Amino acid sequence: MFDTEPDSTEVETRATNDRLPRGGVRSESVRVANLSTILRCLHFSGPMSRSRLVEETGLTRSSVAALVGELSDAGLVSEHAATPNGYPGRPSPTVAVNADRNMVLAIKIEVNDIAVAIVGLGGEVLYRIRVDRYRDLATVEQTVTDIATLVADAHAAVGNAPLLGASVAIVGLVRRSTNTLVIAPNLGWSDIALGDLLQHATQLDIPFAVANEGDVAALAETRRGIAVGQSHVIFLSGEVGVGGGIVAGGRVISGRGGFAGEVGHMPVNPDGLKCGCGARGCWETEVGVRSLLRRTGRKPDGGPAALDEVLQAAAEGDADVLQALDAQGDWLGTGLAGLIHIFDPEMVVLGGMFRRVYPYVIEALQRSLTDRLLATTVGDIDIVASTLGEDASLLGAAELAFEPLLNDPLAFALR
Amino acid sequence: MFDTEPDSTEVETRATNDRLPRGGVRSESVRVANLSTILRCLHFSGPMSRSRLVEETGLTRSSVAALVGELSDAGLVSEHAATPNGYPGRPSPTVAVNADRNMVLAIKIEVNDIAVAIVGLGGEVLYRIRVDRYRDLATVEQTVTDIATLVADAHAAVGNAPLLGASVAIVGLVRRSTNTLVIAPNLGWSDIALGDLLQHATQLDIPFAVANEGDVAALAETRRGIAVGQSHVIFLSGEVGVGGGIVAGGRVISGRGGFAGEVGHMPVNPDGLKCGCGARGCWETEVGVRSLLRRTGRKPDGGPAALDEVLQAAAEGDADVLQALDAQGDWLGTGLAGLIHIFDPEMVVLGGMFRRVYPYVIEALQRSLTDRLLATTVGDIDIVASTLGEDASLLGAAELAFEPLLNDPLAFALR
Repeated sequence: MFDTEPDSTEVETRATNDRLPRGGVRSESVRVANLSTILRCLHFSGPMSRSRLVEETGLTRSSVAALVGELSDAGLVSEHAATPNGYPGRPSPTVAVNADRNMVLAIKIEVNDIAVAIVGLGGEVLYRIRVDRYRDLATVEQTVTDIATLVADAHAAVGNAPLLGASVAIVGLVRRSTNTLVIAPNLGWSDIALGDLLQHATQLDIPFAVANEGDVAALAETRRGIAVGQSHVIFLSGEVGVGGGIVAGGRVISGRGGFAGEVGHMPVNPDGLKCGCGARGCWETEVGVRSLLRRTGRKPDGGPAALDEVLQAAAEGDADVLQALDAQGDWLGTGLAGLIHIFDPEMVVLGGMFRRVYPYVIEALQRSLTDRLLATTVGDIDIVASTLGEDASLLGAAELAFEPLLNDPLAFALR
Repeated sequence: MFDTEPDSTEVETRATNDRLPRGGVRSESVRVANLSTILRCLHFSGPMSRSRLVEETGLTRSSVAALVGELSDAGLVSEHAATPNGYPGRPSPTVAVNADRNMVLAIKIEVNDIAVAIVGLGGEVLYRIRVDRYRDLATVEQTVTDIATLVADAHAAVGNAPLLGASVAIVGLVRRSTNTLVIAPNLGWSDIALGDLLQHATQLDIPFAVANEGDVAALAETRRGIAVGQSHVIFLSGEVGVGGGIVAGGRVISGRGGFAGEVGHMPVNPDGLKCGCGARGCWETEVGVRSLLRRTGRKPDGGPAALDEVLQAAAEGDADVLQALDAQGDWLGTGLAGLIHIFDPEMVVLGGMFRRVYPYVIEALQRSLTDRLLATTVGDIDIVASTLGEDASLLGAAELAFEPLLNDPLAFALR
């Protein structure tokens, strides 16, 4: 369940320990770290017995009992009588998170749709709603108003119970420290205090964290999706733009301001097309939705309906469409080769539109990788389609909203 | 000294705490973590008073006293009487590492030279030797023999005192778990058990860790060089090939097998030249030493002498050479724009040959970045030349060799 092989090759450049304050370990921080470990364990892996918690955490039996007691007093977990397991001795009771008393709000904003969910501790989706939207209507004001309506419905559906927090995944570059959208070229938005706007519109007295959808989707894939247990993962999300989220050494990299992972703007073709960002020949001009529509002779701005049409034609064996998908796969492999040289991943997860074209591009993609990879062979890397699909960024937003609680359970518990 | 702003935006994908075993914190691991924190503090920042250690680590006065006592008993540190500072009260004694009793061996192997150093705890270089070599002579056997001779000289120079460990930085892809060089296209070597070969040839009974030179140079820059205190750094090393080392969230990323950071093989030009790796249009075909020599009308394989000539001509204002350097700067900026979109760094450090051409390429590089960057402006990122220069990878190798001791001081102390 946990990554039991620590990344012995990764070396910290400084003396601080990220989980514990100021380098030195004092007893109060030990208690917080241990509460955090127990709660993470249950949140990531589901209900388990106290004995299993002892095994998983390396803590003593009495420590686990005391820590579970504290989490239980805070309403975060409950203990349930164990079902007899046929072995002699008294079975250990099962500990589980209280999903319905510890909920967060998750929101995603993409080019073609918005979605809202209420997610319980442990990752259970308690309520979800998704609506299509169209680019012409996508003003910030309208979007915020629409989301506030969806949020009110969702919150009512769970009895307007108190929420731990909220998080928004969006297809754009986000300054995490201020929860501001800096720029979303494919929405045409820039400099939006999105966290504040949504908090105001929803009238909810909880923090709204804003994050890049690729980053949180990568988080979701490693916690809830196909990449569980992997420490080195490249997540690629293809839509109009191409986003990414990178997990290196068990952490989603964010960079200084939260802008890391913008793999769509790798320069791959000096003679290429003009990109939404203003530069020429960025990777997304060769592998995004528009390039696929263009390659099949369709209008690049055809949207989801045109993409559906292309996929339908591919399923029916349309030779021109299959050739266009082959070219798409070749360019996917070219850029991916660069990323594999940079990150040396265990797994590449293809999400968004890439998940849907996967069966038609994988052969050309692997051929292109084989031509380019230096020390790694294609067979060494799992190149897989996302299993979370459209939900990845929504589930990732929920995970992000749970982070303060997971890091310091008693400080952020509702009571 | 420490990074006091933790990377609150980086989220772990799992419950483990890298510094502490198996997630849970037990008292014996607390002691190890605290000893590690004190020793790292002194190793990174030099001698300091116990009061300063209290401030820097957040540990109590009595804990610091006890931990320093243990480190002192192990011969790792010494306490020196404090010089009166003019303030009332008894001045706190100064604690310092024992550099000359705790030494490591550092080796670097590049295309044009090899070097060996003995480095003391705290980072002091006690002995260093560098010799030029030429590509035709660079067989593995000859190189290993040459290094063994240099090591014997170096070790004799410090009285053949026991060494804590050894580490080798090399321009190639290294499998860290086996200390094997997988491939070094620009040396023409592959599948070499370099760690074992060197241990055997030097007859030293210490572990030989092998690592990529870009990775350890990046480590050195953040611990001893211009990037001290930075958490998000791209280090680029230009030679015949172009290597890199990436610091993300305060850690050098290594990837699954240790192959991460091979930024020279980003595909930037589909119509470009054939690369040493076999692919076409990798970044190093546009920005490596050979491309510069080619652009100035020289033989690509001219080596260091030809590069010196180009730099001399640039210093004298040779218009053709300056134009070639401008083109080089433009391509440097193109690839760097991709890396900045991927990593969102605070700083870019140019090492190796890039450090020498820095004044002639920086303008074109910044122009190229300005054209391509999306959310970050060029002025937000420090683009600087390495101050460690040729020593970066050698000092980084030493840092790597100190890691086991820094992580668990008493387990790895010599006595």
